Amino acid sequence: MSERRYDPTHDEWVTFATHRQDRTYKPAAAACPLCPTRPGGPETEVPREHFDIAVFDNRFPSLSTRPPAPDVAGTDLVPVEPAYGHCEVVVFTDDHDATLADVGVARVHLLVETWARRVADLGADPRVRYVMPFENKGEAVGVTLHHPHGQIYAYPDVPPRPARELAAGRRHHAATGRCVFCDVVAAEAGGPREVVAGDHFVAGVPPWARFPYEVDVWAREHVPSLPETSAAARADLARVLARVLAGYDRYFGFSTSYLMGVHAAPTDGGDRDVSHLHLEICPPHRGAGKIKYLAGSETFGGAFLTDVAPELAAQRLRQACADVEVPA
Amino acid sequence: MSERRYDPTHDEWVTFATHRQDRTYKPAAAACPLCPTRPGGPETEVPREHFDIAVFDNRFPSLSTRPPAPDVAGTDLVPVEPAYGHCEVVVFTDDHDATLADVGVARVHLLVETWARRVADLGADPRVRYVMPFENKGEAVGVTLHHPHGQIYAYPDVPPRPARELAAGRRHHAATGRCVFCDVVAAEAGGPREVVAGDHFVAGVPPWARFPYEVDVWAREHVPSLPETSAAARADLARVLARVLAGYDRYFGFSTSYLMGVHAAPTDGGDRDVSHLHLEICPPHRGAGKIKYLAGSETFGGAFLTDVAPELAAQRLRQACADVEVPA
Repeated sequence: MSERRYDPTHDEWVTFATHRQDRTYKPAAAACPLCPTRPGGPETEVPREHFDIAVFDNRFPSLSTRPPAPDVAGTDLVPVEPAYGHCEVVVFTDDHDATLADVGVARVHLLVETWARRVADLGADPRVRYVMPFENKGEAVGVTLHHPHGQIYAYPDVPPRPARELAAGRRHHAATGRCVFCDVVAAEAGGPREVVAGDHFVAGVPPWARFPYEVDVWAREHVPSLPETSAAARADLARVLARVLAGYDRYFGFSTSYLMGVHAAPTDGGDRDVSHLHLEICPPHRGAGKIKYLAGSETFGGAFLTDVAPELAAQRLRQACADVEVPA
Repeated sequence: MSERRYDPTHDEWVTFATHRQDRTYKPAAAACPLCPTRPGGPETEVPREHFDIAVFDNRFPSLSTRPPAPDVAGTDLVPVEPAYGHCEVVVFTDDHDATLADVGVARVHLLVETWARRVADLGADPRVRYVMPFENKGEAVGVTLHHPHGQIYAYPDVPPRPARELAAGRRHHAATGRCVFCDVVAAEAGGPREVVAGDHFVAGVPPWARFPYEVDVWAREHVPSLPETSAAARADLARVLARVLAGYDRYFGFSTSYLMGVHAAPTDGGDRDVSHLHLEICPPHRGAGKIKYLAGSETFGGAFLTDVAPELAAQRLRQACADVEVPA
């Protein structure tokens, strides 16, 4: 079962992929499917003894290039369609015990280059409208494979949250003639919520942070997507991102769990004047040993509650990012 | 700090309440602030030796009727305002170890009557636009007080998710002349996803369930809000709800964690033809010992992925709800 059903009460699609119930669940390190295939060891997803970065199709995908016919018939009220799309896995290193926060700037740079290439390749599929690289890190956010890795989803439409972002951007552009993220960069760069300043990217706690220690990384200049950035900008993004992730670990004092996602332009060529490349990084931690859960107000209201002032979170993270040594 | 800041990149407000960082966190049973105040024992939030249901202001509220001046000045880009509103706690029973699933139909009926009265009272505040009763139950969803209780938030605006629901309802109404939830009830009642059928309410797994074992409870007839239901309808809602919650525990074999929220009309009198009273109940469980986490696709895409077919979840829950004995 790999199908999408339309929710007419919220104007959103939900994807069903029942085979994912059987996906690999917290395997022992010796059985890790993302480790290299070593002589005499089990055959893993990566048929190499060593690698820097590996990209391949997810064995338990939510979206598929050959989805089966849906289980149920759609109706006018609840249309149903095969869940078309791509789900790729990006393994950051062949070291099972590393994290993206400690692999060093060069490897993060390779990841950024990989993202840019995969976004361009997957976005070239005419049935794809939005490509989103992301990482779920740590048991606190439900990760079932500990080997450091991220994912790339290529959706057949612009998903609900980026769609709302683009709609908000279109309204702001209609009212002001400007990209709202360009205005955000102008307001935030060098201010009290800035965390790391690069030449091409700036990282900061947004004034409206949904998670207590959320850090967003915005392109300083208006650029719609990763494949359109300059080589110098991609190298700078790697430096900024590596420092933010290392700063989290320094501040919290442990390997920080987080969700990280890349937002950019739809791949169908639309909305380029309001699409502004940025990353959102959301750790679930709200303090020592305490997790920020999404509860009633967030789930049914969509109304986020945060109990750390963005200015205080930024001050703490800025210091940690300044103090930490980031491996080259 | 109790303030709202506007996110111009998503057209949403986020609420900051930093004093909540110090809220009571998993106290020992002997120090439970929601237990009755017993002779010789500590003074709790409820100055009675026994009670059926207690309602009072949250001691650590996100929204306040007297919010302080904001910490930061707002701008045209990011307006900031005091976080006006009401946050109430509803304690379901004086029995620390009970749950809403086992207190019996009569007590659930009293809760429904309490919700109806509080929605009417809080909604009468001209600065309130939306009142939402909800319950967060269980450590799996982050509950910090184990004594069975729910909450009621009275927001100064229609929060993002209900606002999207109303917008989708207005589009459906404009296209068809009908309420979308009335169409959902006509399509779902008596069908393969029905879980419990009452005279006035019907519970079912929606075809687009965001959570694997989500159950929604819809009013059969179009009624905008709880205070407008008949006495017979409220009694029926109590019977249906008590059976659904007991059925969860029967199916999973343990006291089921869940988030539950009530959606209804804004309290400012608007959108009555597209506001249709219903409850959403979302357990985080996706199987034995496995939790459904909201990860990259949900957080950054708003695109929900589910790995249980709604028809299968409904069949399982329908059987459990039929088999279970619900105390009167």
